[in-house]
Amino acid sequence: MKIIKTIDEMRDISKDIFKSSKELGLVPTMGYLHEGHKSLIKKAKKENDLVAVSIFVNPTQFAPDEDLENYPRDLDRDAKICEELGVDYIFHPREEEMYPENFSTFVLPGENMTNIMCGITRPTHFRGVCTVLTKIFNIISPQRAYFGEKDIQQLAIVKRMVEDMNFDIDIVGCPIVREDDGLAKSSRNSYLDSNERESASILRKSILKAKQMIESGERDAIRVQASMIEMIESEALAKIDYIEILDFETFQRLKVIQNKTLISMAVYIGKTRLIDNMVIDLNK
Amino acid sequence: MKIIKTIDEMRDISKDIFKSSKELGLVPTMGYLHEGHKSLIKKAKKENDLVAVSIFVNPTQFAPDEDLENYPRDLDRDAKICEELGVDYIFHPREEEMYPENFSTFVLPGENMTNIMCGITRPTHFRGVCTVLTKIFNIISPQRAYFGEKDIQQLAIVKRMVEDMNFDIDIVGCPIVREDDGLAKSSRNSYLDSNERESASILRKSILKAKQMIESGERDAIRVQASMIEMIESEALAKIDYIEILDFETFQRLKVIQNKTLISMAVYIGKTRLIDNMVIDLNK
Repeated sequence: MKIIKTIDEMRDISKDIFKSSKELGLVPTMGYLHEGHKSLIKKAKKENDLVAVSIFVNPTQFAPDEDLENYPRDLDRDAKICEELGVDYIFHPREEEMYPENFSTFVLPGENMTNIMCGITRPTHFRGVCTVLTKIFNIISPQRAYFGEKDIQQLAIVKRMVEDMNFDIDIVGCPIVREDDGLAKSSRNSYLDSNERESASILRKSILKAKQMIESGERDAIRVQASMIEMIESEALAKIDYIEILDFETFQRLKVIQNKTLISMAVYIGKTRLIDNMVIDLNK
Repeated sequence: MKIIKTIDEMRDISKDIFKSSKELGLVPTMGYLHEGHKSLIKKAKKENDLVAVSIFVNPTQFAPDEDLENYPRDLDRDAKICEELGVDYIFHPREEEMYPENFSTFVLPGENMTNIMCGITRPTHFRGVCTVLTKIFNIISPQRAYFGEKDIQQLAIVKRMVEDMNFDIDIVGCPIVREDDGLAKSSRNSYLDSNERESASILRKSILKAKQMIESGERDAIRVQASMIEMIESEALAKIDYIEILDFETFQRLKVIQNKTLISMAVYIGKTRLIDNMVIDLNK
């Protein structure tokens, strides 16, 4: 495994791979790898000749008041995990090379996909995500790139961007990996103290409650949402940012639950903001 | 020469060219080719194994009040010109394929480069340019792309975008083609009567005056600008729209002339608005 720290070196390697007609899978990350990332890497390993993992804490997807400085970083640990999983390349560029002085171009996803859910409280977040991915896609030119379904809005936006910008890349979504109590794995879980960690399972529990209601025949989105809110508010450390019940294809809010429904939420546990979601397909 | 009308076919050809290690030069155009385009194509022919010309009247760079429908189109004539100049591929996609339903992602150049000069009257123009070029660059993957220095703001914005987004493409600027007295060639020159035509050389003369001052050691941008204003105002038929002295990389107004300096102007001669510019590189 090779750790590559400059854009030029990464690009030269990518070009050689492309010319050799080998398939390269990319797992873009901000590092501090957890089980979720591992599942993406394993899937990438299965589906490609070579696998690259990018590790870059991207400043443009953090707002000034967000936790960029304190975002956890541990390259040695990440490298060990990648090595064990058979990753071929880690791309770990410096911030000054990715965003040199005078950097000013951004890739802007459509408002229809960013003016709900995480886009409301993080209005520049997905612009940062699309911008850094455009850069990384141009540097690495993978055949496939792997994203977790945990960040479901990100996955939908990236798929749209790749289609709109005519990137020749397959965007592959991978299922959420969970702890034993159902908490979706996340780097941010490391911020939780033990009380908070226990409370955090309320996100998953509320989604399973919604699933149960829908499977029992409930189709009123407001009633399902109200039931989830009641459940989460019973947890003292939890504070709801949003709970959305949306049509999965259009990201439009639903009154009547039907077809493919996305239930998506962001909840603060103490000071840590966690997200979770589930897609329920009534046609299945 | 081959005329290619679908994205998939163009992409397949581009990939084969890349794998064969042949160099591909791209001249992006909206068609209705004139002498300016020809000079770009000729330069591309000299510097690359193969040359592609894209011909696409890009709707996203027109404002609603601009005349997209009546923009001149003549593919047969353009194809003949390309054939004569030895072009290998014309990429001529349909609007519905380039901008399908639900298209929503845009590439946004920095405000610092778009809130002056032509960007003031055309606020969404350069967003459309960057968006369509990102698409075309991703489809064609050229080694080099050719742009005229007459549209200096476009050239600077595209260079910035390519650097910011890490496209592996050399953006090649091509010199302004001029009449014997230095007037930049433009279809608008035909609007000038013989007195106006004579007066019009004041644009170039004032730029050469600025160049002379700078080469003699003058570094005060205000003094250079004042001297240009005085020279142009001595010409009865001339009325200044703007004269800008900018850093070519950042488009920030300069007090002290340094590094790569852009001198850019728009001047009315009678009722005809003419533009001209020069980049002076003090590092050379």
